[in-house]
Amino acid sequence: MITQKRTVIYVSDGTGITAETLGHGLLAQFDGIEFQPLRFPFLDSLEKARNCLVRINELNLSEGVQPIVVMTVTDHEICELLHQGQAFFIDLFDTYIAPLEKELGSKYTRSVGRSHGHAHPQYNARIAAMNFALAHDDGISDSDLKSADVILVGVSRSGKTPTSLYLSLQFSLKAANYPLIPEDFERNHLPSRLMPYRSKLYGLTIAPEQLHRIRNERRPNSKYSSLENCRYEVAAAEKMMRREGIKWFDTTSRSIEELSVQLMQAMQGDQTVHKFS
Amino acid sequence: MITQKRTVIYVSDGTGITAETLGHGLLAQFDGIEFQPLRFPFLDSLEKARNCLVRINELNLSEGVQPIVVMTVTDHEICELLHQGQAFFIDLFDTYIAPLEKELGSKYTRSVGRSHGHAHPQYNARIAAMNFALAHDDGISDSDLKSADVILVGVSRSGKTPTSLYLSLQFSLKAANYPLIPEDFERNHLPSRLMPYRSKLYGLTIAPEQLHRIRNERRPNSKYSSLENCRYEVAAAEKMMRREGIKWFDTTSRSIEELSVQLMQAMQGDQTVHKFS
Repeated sequence: MITQKRTVIYVSDGTGITAETLGHGLLAQFDGIEFQPLRFPFLDSLEKARNCLVRINELNLSEGVQPIVVMTVTDHEICELLHQGQAFFIDLFDTYIAPLEKELGSKYTRSVGRSHGHAHPQYNARIAAMNFALAHDDGISDSDLKSADVILVGVSRSGKTPTSLYLSLQFSLKAANYPLIPEDFERNHLPSRLMPYRSKLYGLTIAPEQLHRIRNERRPNSKYSSLENCRYEVAAAEKMMRREGIKWFDTTSRSIEELSVQLMQAMQGDQTVHKFS
Repeated sequence: MITQKRTVIYVSDGTGITAETLGHGLLAQFDGIEFQPLRFPFLDSLEKARNCLVRINELNLSEGVQPIVVMTVTDHEICELLHQGQAFFIDLFDTYIAPLEKELGSKYTRSVGRSHGHAHPQYNARIAAMNFALAHDDGISDSDLKSADVILVGVSRSGKTPTSLYLSLQFSLKAANYPLIPEDFERNHLPSRLMPYRSKLYGLTIAPEQLHRIRNERRPNSKYSSLENCRYEVAAAEKMMRREGIKWFDTTSRSIEELSVQLMQAMQGDQTVHKFS
């Protein structure tokens, strides 16, 4: 039940993605309130700050309640100007930078967009990982599987593609994925091209009822999407993964974020992966 | 120049992605310090908290300097236990929840994984957007282009695919992309199947020198990757976009995050997109 509406203003001199992640993490903890986001990214001049200030105060008057401002702004003058607004402020840098400077014995650099910058050394690794994930989606290519960090296996529509892409985009992991198909179950062994990479294989499984719903949206009333076939494929895939000693995860009620982090934990436990250390 | 190394421990009873984004946003502001991440996701019991506490204190002793702990933990007892560790704490909930409760006149729900949960109403929209982006990558499919939120155009390897995927994964936007190829330049008009969707078209361009480097990694010493051809294609694409009144963005020195947020700003300015409001 929604009992109140509040406007949340995200202000940043960069993309605002950090501010929005912060605000979302905090505000998702409050039930019954509808938060209306308003975004001011790339706010990097006093002129833009003045416009934002006007908007903050307008909202305070028109809504009869002060807006919530979540901000990550590095420039001190801009921060001070914004804080003149009639709002409830969650100011990440204002809260933590001074204590961090003290703790680290180092001055902060006040440079914009550090965490998402193109010049960030990890940026090229992320793009390479994403290209790898796309090139190795759904068993498209066998080439260069040896440079994969992880190879996900599972039946069609068990969640391999979004998880692979998320692993690449968020964690710069080279994630391939490979479908387990009825022919594999009849032959009763893993696709032979995966054999050399056993230590990189992790499985995804899913409740047959949910698989049936997902497949039915794509190919309604087909054998492929029938509940009976979904039950068969899931049972056969789990049997194969169990026999081959492949760790697997159930995607039925997990988000791709949760799955991805659990996969990374399993990989850390199974081998020394320097990327994580 | 690296002058010190510090261990950063990310602790969460969820995925830890919020904690890590926040920590990265703050710590990226400090030069000359190498931060070694250590992750404790899904820390949801006192037993796990005790293990983490032991690790914190071990690190403090072995490194001779206290670790930095960035945490998003909802359980009060677990928080208290962790705070007994010898560390510098950045505790997101501890800092902001009490003032927010007061401001909102509402108690927080202490529920784990709210911001990335599978049950989140926007979750299915995100997966649908990602499937759309994959199905409409590189002009693969014309079907259902009318339901696209945005269609990116640009020469091959100008950054369309990663930007489309990021828009879908981060902002749940249905992003298609379509290559501009030499045949289009010879015909001197946009691909005809894009004509009905002019208002959704945005362009990406790139410095020819960088395009040459990127293409050369894929197909070394080809006509496709030659600097001369890259110069021709980029100039022809920009000429076409200018003539057709398509707004475009230069991807040469922008991250996909920056590009995505700038695209969203342009879309907001151009039309009323309720997704953003």
